[in-house]
Amino acid sequence: MADRLYLYDTTLRDGQQTQGVQFSTAEKLEIARMLDELGVDYIEGGWPGANPTDSEFFTDTPKTRATMTAFGMTKRAGRSAENDDVLAAVMNAGTPAVCLVGKTHVFHVTEALGISLDENLANIRDSLAHVAASREALFDAEHFFDGWKADRDYALSCLRAAYEAGARWIVLCDTNGGTLPGEVGQIVAEVIAAGIPGDHLGIHTHDDTGNAVACSLAAIDAGARQVQGTLNGLGERCGNASLTSLIPTLKLKEPYASRFETQISDAALQRLILMSHRLDEILNRVPLRAAPYVGASAFAHKAGLHASAILKNPATYEHIEPALVGNARVIPMSNQAGQSNLRARLADAGLSVEPGDPALGRILDLVKQREDEGFAFDGAQASFDLLARRELGLLPRFFDVDRYRVTVERRLNAKGQRISVSEAVVVVHLGDQRVLSVSESLDAEGGDRGPVNALWRALAKDLGPYQHAIDDMQLVDFRVRITQGGTDAATRVTIDSADGKGRIWSTVGVSANIVDASFDALIDAITWKLIRDGVTPA
Amino acid sequence: MADRLYLYDTTLRDGQQTQGVQFSTAEKLEIARMLDELGVDYIEGGWPGANPTDSEFFTDTPKTRATMTAFGMTKRAGRSAENDDVLAAVMNAGTPAVCLVGKTHVFHVTEALGISLDENLANIRDSLAHVAASREALFDAEHFFDGWKADRDYALSCLRAAYEAGARWIVLCDTNGGTLPGEVGQIVAEVIAAGIPGDHLGIHTHDDTGNAVACSLAAIDAGARQVQGTLNGLGERCGNASLTSLIPTLKLKEPYASRFETQISDAALQRLILMSHRLDEILNRVPLRAAPYVGASAFAHKAGLHASAILKNPATYEHIEPALVGNARVIPMSNQAGQSNLRARLADAGLSVEPGDPALGRILDLVKQREDEGFAFDGAQASFDLLARRELGLLPRFFDVDRYRVTVERRLNAKGQRISVSEAVVVVHLGDQRVLSVSESLDAEGGDRGPVNALWRALAKDLGPYQHAIDDMQLVDFRVRITQGGTDAATRVTIDSADGKGRIWSTVGVSANIVDASFDALIDAITWKLIRDGVTPA
Repeated sequence: MADRLYLYDTTLRDGQQTQGVQFSTAEKLEIARMLDELGVDYIEGGWPGANPTDSEFFTDTPKTRATMTAFGMTKRAGRSAENDDVLAAVMNAGTPAVCLVGKTHVFHVTEALGISLDENLANIRDSLAHVAASREALFDAEHFFDGWKADRDYALSCLRAAYEAGARWIVLCDTNGGTLPGEVGQIVAEVIAAGIPGDHLGIHTHDDTGNAVACSLAAIDAGARQVQGTLNGLGERCGNASLTSLIPTLKLKEPYASRFETQISDAALQRLILMSHRLDEILNRVPLRAAPYVGASAFAHKAGLHASAILKNPATYEHIEPALVGNARVIPMSNQAGQSNLRARLADAGLSVEPGDPALGRILDLVKQREDEGFAFDGAQASFDLLARRELGLLPRFFDVDRYRVTVERRLNAKGQRISVSEAVVVVHLGDQRVLSVSESLDAEGGDRGPVNALWRALAKDLGPYQHAIDDMQLVDFRVRITQGGTDAATRVTIDSADGKGRIWSTVGVSANIVDASFDALIDAITWKLIRDGVTPA
Repeated sequence: MADRLYLYDTTLRDGQQTQGVQFSTAEKLEIARMLDELGVDYIEGGWPGANPTDSEFFTDTPKTRATMTAFGMTKRAGRSAENDDVLAAVMNAGTPAVCLVGKTHVFHVTEALGISLDENLANIRDSLAHVAASREALFDAEHFFDGWKADRDYALSCLRAAYEAGARWIVLCDTNGGTLPGEVGQIVAEVIAAGIPGDHLGIHTHDDTGNAVACSLAAIDAGARQVQGTLNGLGERCGNASLTSLIPTLKLKEPYASRFETQISDAALQRLILMSHRLDEILNRVPLRAAPYVGASAFAHKAGLHASAILKNPATYEHIEPALVGNARVIPMSNQAGQSNLRARLADAGLSVEPGDPALGRILDLVKQREDEGFAFDGAQASFDLLARRELGLLPRFFDVDRYRVTVERRLNAKGQRISVSEAVVVVHLGDQRVLSVSESLDAEGGDRGPVNALWRALAKDLGPYQHAIDDMQLVDFRVRITQGGTDAATRVTIDSADGKGRIWSTVGVSANIVDASFDALIDAITWKLIRDGVTPA
């Protein structure tokens, strides 16, 4: 019989403490819907009254299957729980659950709060009893692990005060993120031995030593049954435990998969990667290639020995089947690769080539030649696909570029302000038609988005019969590197594009001219999208 | 008495398997020097014979205090160790240590190698004996943890074969990265109980579940005494265990700090952040803000409650003192902490400012504002100097730019060949004079060097009284990153310039428009040169 394990998401509260992150209310609502679709048990929506965004979020709290939870702190000393206005604002949000943070570390009670140890215990007891009278009550035991190491009796008495006052969950927080997994496991076991049942204990960790996920697992191993974290590991300083890493481990890997039951469905797990990307998109962040499970490189097999074994049997170098988390295997091409890598890579792109086909040798030679010129295909799969297709005679001719011209200008306007603007003209042949497009780089606010943006707009403006296929396409990242191409320095531009189906693909262009290199990468990006969407040349 | 713990770095070998990473030989040499300065015990330099870069690295292997190690694989079946050409190439590198990877998992022996279990044992034994006859021998037990779970007797017999053949270290590799910390600890303990001494055991983990650091610690807890990893956690798929995270934990945190001795000095630990940034710089990667210990956000206290407690006592919300790893506290509301740092930095630039000078606060505010816009002064000291000089009233006005225009054009020439050309017009005020310069980007062979080159030529063509000072100046590198500038993505361009006196300096420009950002960085580069050469405004 599997134990029930509860997932508590705090992306909207602790995740909001990430440096540089500032959610709008609309974004918080979208993330809440996403978390509910994922299937977490609790969504911590924020701190009503602490800032305008959180207050607005709770004025029209979204209806969720997950238990919506408002965050706040235990009442201040010198007033009753009923008369604490900060606590009242939290209660007034009307959520089915309320989580209150309180001190459990003697140093913090005396140093940060400046009250007596008994007063702090009374604050915890009274506040949690007040919440528990009408809601599901949770107690976030701040600095618990440090507090336990400093004075375990006092730390434990704080937990007991909350538990006896009716808190459903006592959440052990490693607020400063400095506790290591071994200690976390040991202390959780000791707390359970001291009488707080494991199925009333939660764990809340931070990644300051790179161990947030492991600390969470150690607490679960020791008996805790609620785990807190955030999508993509957002959070104060180095972030919270990443639910994006924890959820697949708990669902797919032993001993957790057999031992525990969660509300996360297999189908939701397969959409985890989309949710991870969507959050990055909301925050305008570049998805981390090396992220466990959901990263673009998580199942990329670059070493030649690995790739050839993968061809025989993927289990040789993969700890899980990538599709279980919605991800895909990648066999990058590079000058370290051989023919078996190449065949595997081609098979991934839907191109079946027999061993010994002379095209394989030609493609490898071409890859090597291009890499000598400054290309790097292992970070630009889509451009590699196109190169191989061309060599295999499988690249349709969608359109030809006749010419382009880009102008970048900076001057002072009539008011003496410095302004800049870029303009691009692109001339394309679509079958018999010659199409001339012009575009500026100005965004809705009149800001100049630069020459590559202008080129992209001009290209995307009128691609006639192909227009429908690229309408949902956007540029999400742009990387530039000076490389040694032959005897001269060359500029390598890599562009990441995304579409409405959640696909992200990378293309590369190389030239001494950065605009020219960008243009080639853009053309590849569009061509790859047309092929992947099954578009046939007009 | 503290145990000796050995650090083995594989940035140059497994780190090179990172998708998108392609070190040049010069870069490998620089990283080797950096690792040696850090104080790791072993530097795995690569696989001699596997690719041209690694072979070149080992033709003139750098002299290091650390034990330079060549990587390879155990001999193939059907030939002797002496007659295996792949192994011979590894031995011929002449390094003091050689690490050979071999199979320990029955499935891999039969599936990937297709040889008998006994043949594989003989390959391990003979290969390690061959190495141990003249070098320090290490055995990388590939897929060890999966192999142990499948057939522990066979996996153990592989370790014994290597150990008895004279391997100094038996490295337990979690090649697929799927083993969780609890299992790693248990299996390492069982291996030691089965007779392989812990001070001959190494651990090599990957981050596929986000637990690479924790798995390494679990193995050390169980008795392993060598730990392998990479700087910044580079490596195949999700990366290897990050030494950048592990080293501070081992040096600073209990139980490791008291229990173990390493070769990493306190001074080297304080430079860890610089090394981490330098590696990102070499790879043209944006440093991860949330990285444990070395990230820009690792000691950033955004939550209001945290920040106010930090002001009373930093220990309230910090697990270590940031300066121990060369990092600094960031408190969004206050710039007080930074003033002494700033004065030191200004002194470096020859600018002496008294403590308490109100300009210090203004400069810090300006730096913060610029960094919010996407600037990064860490890698652009010259632009920082100019910013500070402007605020201190010490920036002479050499010339003003009225306007510029750059055109990039690609078309087919009369012979149907694709050609591109860039042209730049710059209008500058030099005192009363208005100077209009135009320049093309074509080099001596008629090749297009791009718009930034054209701008640079136009600027450098006629700077009147300043011309003599910039004649010996050239652009040596150019880096571009997309950064988060306010709510919009901005492009950051960093330009390295050099002059005939051997000076190299870096300047930065930020704009949504890459050409505009480049132009600002160029102007800074010229201005800095004029100041350094003691030129006075005409």
